[in-house]
Amino acid sequence: MKYKIAVIGATGFTGMELIRILKAHPYAELNMLTSESYAGLSVKQALPYFNTDKLLEKADLKKAGETCDVIFLCLPHTKSAAAAAKLLKFGKKLIDLSADFRLKAPKLYAKYYGVKHPFPGLLKESVYGLPELNAHKIRGAAFTANPGCYPTGAILACAPAVCAGLVKTAGIVINSVSGVSGAGRKMKTEYHFSEQHANIKAYKLVDHQHTPEIEQELSKLRKNAKATVSFTPHLGPYNRGIITTVAFDLLKNISTEKALAVYKVFYAAKQFVKVLPEGVLPEVKNVAGSNFCEIGLKVNTRLKKLIVVSAIDNLVKGASGQAVQNMNLMLGLPESAGLLDLGMMP
Amino acid sequence: MKYKIAVIGATGFTGMELIRILKAHPYAELNMLTSESYAGLSVKQALPYFNTDKLLEKADLKKAGETCDVIFLCLPHTKSAAAAAKLLKFGKKLIDLSADFRLKAPKLYAKYYGVKHPFPGLLKESVYGLPELNAHKIRGAAFTANPGCYPTGAILACAPAVCAGLVKTAGIVINSVSGVSGAGRKMKTEYHFSEQHANIKAYKLVDHQHTPEIEQELSKLRKNAKATVSFTPHLGPYNRGIITTVAFDLLKNISTEKALAVYKVFYAAKQFVKVLPEGVLPEVKNVAGSNFCEIGLKVNTRLKKLIVVSAIDNLVKGASGQAVQNMNLMLGLPESAGLLDLGMMP
Amino acid sequence: MKYKIAVIGATGFTGMELIRILKAHPYAELNMLTSESYAGLSVKQALPYFNTDKLLEKADLKKAGETCDVIFLCLPHTKSAAAAAKLLKFGKKLIDLSADFRLKAPKLYAKYYGVKHPFPGLLKESVYGLPELNAHKIRGAAFTANPGCYPTGAILACAPAVCAGLVKTAGIVINSVSGVSGAGRKMKTEYHFSEQHANIKAYKLVDHQHTPEIEQELSKLRKNAKATVSFTPHLGPYNRGIITTVAFDLLKNISTEKALAVYKVFYAAKQFVKVLPEGVLPEVKNVAGSNFCEIGLKVNTRLKKLIVVSAIDNLVKGASGQAVQNMNLMLGLPESAGLLDLGMMP
Amino acid sequence: MKYKIAVIGATGFTGMELIRILKAHPYAELNMLTSESYAGLSVKQALPYFNTDKLLEKADLKKAGETCDVIFLCLPHTKSAAAAAKLLKFGKKLIDLSADFRLKAPKLYAKYYGVKHPFPGLLKESVYGLPELNAHKIRGAAFTANPGCYPTGAILACAPAVCAGLVKTAGIVINSVSGVSGAGRKMKTEYHFSEQHANIKAYKLVDHQHTPEIEQELSKLRKNAKATVSFTPHLGPYNRGIITTVAFDLLKNISTEKALAVYKVFYAAKQFVKVLPEGVLPEVKNVAGSNFCEIGLKVNTRLKKLIVVSAIDNLVKGASGQAVQNMNLMLGLPESAGLLDLGMMP
Repeated sequence: MKYKIAVIGATGFTGMELIRILKAHPYAELNMLTSESYAGLSVKQALPYFNTDKLLEKADLKKAGETCDVIFLCLPHTKSAAAAAKLLKFGKKLIDLSADFRLKAPKLYAKYYGVKHPFPGLLKESVYGLPELNAHKIRGAAFTANPGCYPTGAILACAPAVCAGLVKTAGIVINSVSGVSGAGRKMKTEYHFSEQHANIKAYKLVDHQHTPEIEQELSKLRKNAKATVSFTPHLGPYNRGIITTVAFDLLKNISTEKALAVYKVFYAAKQFVKVLPEGVLPEVKNVAGSNFCEIGLKVNTRLKKLIVVSAIDNLVKGASGQAVQNMNLMLGLPESAGLLDLGMMP
Repeated sequence: MKYKIAVIGATGFTGMELIRILKAHPYAELNMLTSESYAGLSVKQALPYFNTDKLLEKADLKKAGETCDVIFLCLPHTKSAAAAAKLLKFGKKLIDLSADFRLKAPKLYAKYYGVKHPFPGLLKESVYGLPELNAHKIRGAAFTANPGCYPTGAILACAPAVCAGLVKTAGIVINSVSGVSGAGRKMKTEYHFSEQHANIKAYKLVDHQHTPEIEQELSKLRKNAKATVSFTPHLGPYNRGIITTVAFDLLKNISTEKALAVYKVFYAAKQFVKVLPEGVLPEVKNVAGSNFCEIGLKVNTRLKKLIVVSAIDNLVKGASGQAVQNMNLMLGLPESAGLLDLGMMP
Repeated sequence: MKYKIAVIGATGFTGMELIRILKAHPYAELNMLTSESYAGLSVKQALPYFNTDKLLEKADLKKAGETCDVIFLCLPHTKSAAAAAKLLKFGKKLIDLSADFRLKAPKLYAKYYGVKHPFPGLLKESVYGLPELNAHKIRGAAFTANPGCYPTGAILACAPAVCAGLVKTAGIVINSVSGVSGAGRKMKTEYHFSEQHANIKAYKLVDHQHTPEIEQELSKLRKNAKATVSFTPHLGPYNRGIITTVAFDLLKNISTEKALAVYKVFYAAKQFVKVLPEGVLPEVKNVAGSNFCEIGLKVNTRLKKLIVVSAIDNLVKGASGQAVQNMNLMLGLPESAGLLDLGMMP
Repeated sequence: MKYKIAVIGATGFTGMELIRILKAHPYAELNMLTSESYAGLSVKQALPYFNTDKLLEKADLKKAGETCDVIFLCLPHTKSAAAAAKLLKFGKKLIDLSADFRLKAPKLYAKYYGVKHPFPGLLKESVYGLPELNAHKIRGAAFTANPGCYPTGAILACAPAVCAGLVKTAGIVINSVSGVSGAGRKMKTEYHFSEQHANIKAYKLVDHQHTPEIEQELSKLRKNAKATVSFTPHLGPYNRGIITTVAFDLLKNISTEKALAVYKVFYAAKQFVKVLPEGVLPEVKNVAGSNFCEIGLKVNTRLKKLIVVSAIDNLVKGASGQAVQNMNLMLGLPESAGLLDLGMMP
């Protein structure tokens, strides 16, 4: 049996990746692909990466709600909430890839996204869709808020240490470098090839909107954790992938071997997280195109710090692959269906 | 008057950059350029970037010591110490770009470079050549140890905060991303184009050899500072430049404006450090080819942290440009001679 | 039913791509993966792109011949011929990705590869595996010589014009730019990241070994065609993909529309060649990871020339994807099995 | 003595490069730098590559004409002609970097630039500023049309063979690959980092506007040459540099050695053209940032063809460096003043 899928906003980067992944998915059938700018063209005309004759159409949410089993929302922040409000009543599986339902506190949404949340009443209806932590809630759920790209890499790097109580949870220092695709397809001078070629820079110091999302989720992992993070994103001269480096203060010294053991146990049953052996470290190229997350770590005994590094593909585990992983859980399918063989040397 | 210059090891990346900079230097004349692998070829044959007919020759240290006024050593670590030992007796200006004379404690050298220092007695004869901190010692000195590339970016980002006593000096968290040229011209699988294309990774977690160098210099900046740093280097998919992001714990909260004022005052008389206005952040492309260091910062009042970012070209301010800046001071020339107009959009 | 597959030389770039493609192939089972340098490691340890626990083993040709249905040879030129000689007697399907059986004239092999062909007697036993031209011979064949990467892009760009007799076949001018992966994983100074970053260059002017291969195949397309080509390869600063631009002299003027019609008819039944509409041109990114070849063209009426451009991924349509396409034909499977959904935005 | 310089349009890529080059020029003083979008900012604020406090101002042509000795026009095509018309009457040295005065036939201008030339009467007043061919006319001239980037690389690659009568001049096949900076700073989707990362493509087949410019200049080189060229430009995934590959039909066979001799003699007195020894070929990185042009060639005796390859930096020898070379000649300065030491490993 194949489930009918709608992708609302299919020609942005996350929509594109959904097409790539779902085309090869054993239980999915692409039923409705919408695009305001490319409506009327076939997928292969608008997105030559894919050999698909299916036509792109203007978004018709009612039709999507009536005819599809699963609806992925790949809309800009704030527009997505309005679409979700309309779609929820159809009782289908809804997965929102925007930021609109990630933060559960409307006040934080207003502060970090600069606009009042239009449907605060819906915030509690969605599950935060990070399967490695929330699979039990996502399984069978109707409405999932797909995590941000940076939060995915950061939370996966932090969760075992926080959960096991190895580290201080106030003021965790997180640095990430993302490829340019993380900014989406929109045109801005800073994303001109000539501006970012051979360039790397930090941006949005202190106030990046993914900060409260990371804190919200880490704080759930341990009683009174009240995690706070100092998060600094960077933009690098490549297209796909995020490397995240976390510096924790250890509550008490521990060997690298033991810290690794904590991580390995935590992720033992999680197919998409690879905890690397001591001395091996994550690389963005290793997860290019794939839904895997690599994690490596080392303890600095001298300074009583734990350094953890994670690598993901921001468009896959950081967006569309994870959305499909959520879909699998929501539909009661095997969690890894269609997701194990996506990687490619870049 | 032009000083006669020898570059011992002229065809590695730091040697190449010395040629580029010194060719345009108003007080320098390239007198001896040595290369074991390209001896007999002209500079333009071995290094087509440069329009120079001068012949490369095998290293003859005695001749260099007798005929040149300034000798730059661009040799691998440990080989450099032996060469320096021979050259010092000639009483000329000697600038060592290797790591051999940066660490003043032979024990740390042995620990981080994996070999006993061959001439520990000479360690005290050299000045650590970071002009923004040590100009008074470098001026007129005979022997300078040119700083490492990461330490240059890191120390410049940290010095004002440490010196002004704004921050805790134990456990400063430093993350850097370097271009591939930082690894030199040697061949290793990981530097194959296909391996590093579109890739970014962390490496040498906890134990990178530049860690004690950063600590040594920051510790001098304030009584009882005893700085310790958790330093994590990364390798990015580009050639030139280092971005360094520092997370400090503030001793007490301060506004971004005041923190910036501390940095601006500290570097007010330093020509090569640009403290950027609030809201503007360093980019590696802005310093490509140049001897400048850009610094930007922001205070995280909520978490009582100070985030400082610096950008340098690892081959210029992080190596050969700084070496020439040191030469200028050692010879009593204007500090910026030949160094102001090196930048280029990459 | 799944066929048992051996990949001899599984950790070079073409071996890697075979693993990627065959893992997702509906009729294939990876039975033996050999690697001299990584034997004993699992695939995921040696090639982190892939989530595969299968062990890499030292090559045992006898075992491969006895236990596998299809054997892919990904060995260096000349070593491959010796392996093929041993394997042929087992009567299995053999696909050689080296250059050893592409040229049917031993003299040309000796001239362009600098060594006498070790098994000239076997040259006639293999079919040249370009399915768009030779599907009828490949179907059911036992032994296929997989085309070179440049010849694939060049022959596909030229075949319709040559076959239809539109153009002079003497002195066709062909220019190609390849990504660095085309050179394989071997280390050479020129493939160091720092040497090829932001660089492009021509190489092997006039005498590239793919020249006679292109000529051999084009010459078969029309009676007395005796095609000769002036082929100039270039190396670009990226990893995957070849763009090929051909300048033909038209025998008589023709409109772009008509020339396009010739190409469209020629490839009407060929699933992996996309002849683009007038005004649209191939891009390497459009075929990244995929087995498709894009072709665009325009007539220069003023100069009576036809310009044709093709784009392929050198590792897929130019190597491993084509090898699987050949396997499909040799086994009587649908030609496109496992090959339609490999593309990805780079 | 220093000449006062105005750069009209100083914050586009060619304007920026003029600043870089002229800052270090022994006879130039930057007197007026105009920018409509950055007026009021200092150079270092708008263009952080440069350490210059000079203010950018709105264009005031009258003031430029009255107060400056040399005026560089870096304006969009067609706007430049109007500015030139106003500036010519001041009798200063005028160098136009736009396309407005390159083509001497107004009909060709209209055909290739899609608009009637606004001042056809001025076309004959300007000299085509390719110093390697026209130095005698440029020396002392008042008004120079600076060549296009592709024509510079193509004409330099072709001139000796055409001039010496070695080759057919009808239907010369020219392929070029340019870095993205060649398209200027304007925003278009195709120049988004994510669109051009790891991509290469051909564009404007047959009809690129640089075609008639190349033909115009090559046709002057030999009586009845009537050169026609089939020119195909490509866009590569890097920022600076053009590689141009020319395929000529030889009128009669000649050895590579002799062809090289022709090129070496032709350029013997030209400082900025390096004819490389047999077996050595141009690379874009070798001329990064520099005003040099590398040329390599090989004869294909079998096909009676001559293949010539050239490499330039499109922003330097292909634009601003050449403009300064023209300035030097127009002012009677040494042709290479300020231009010999601009190169840098990218």
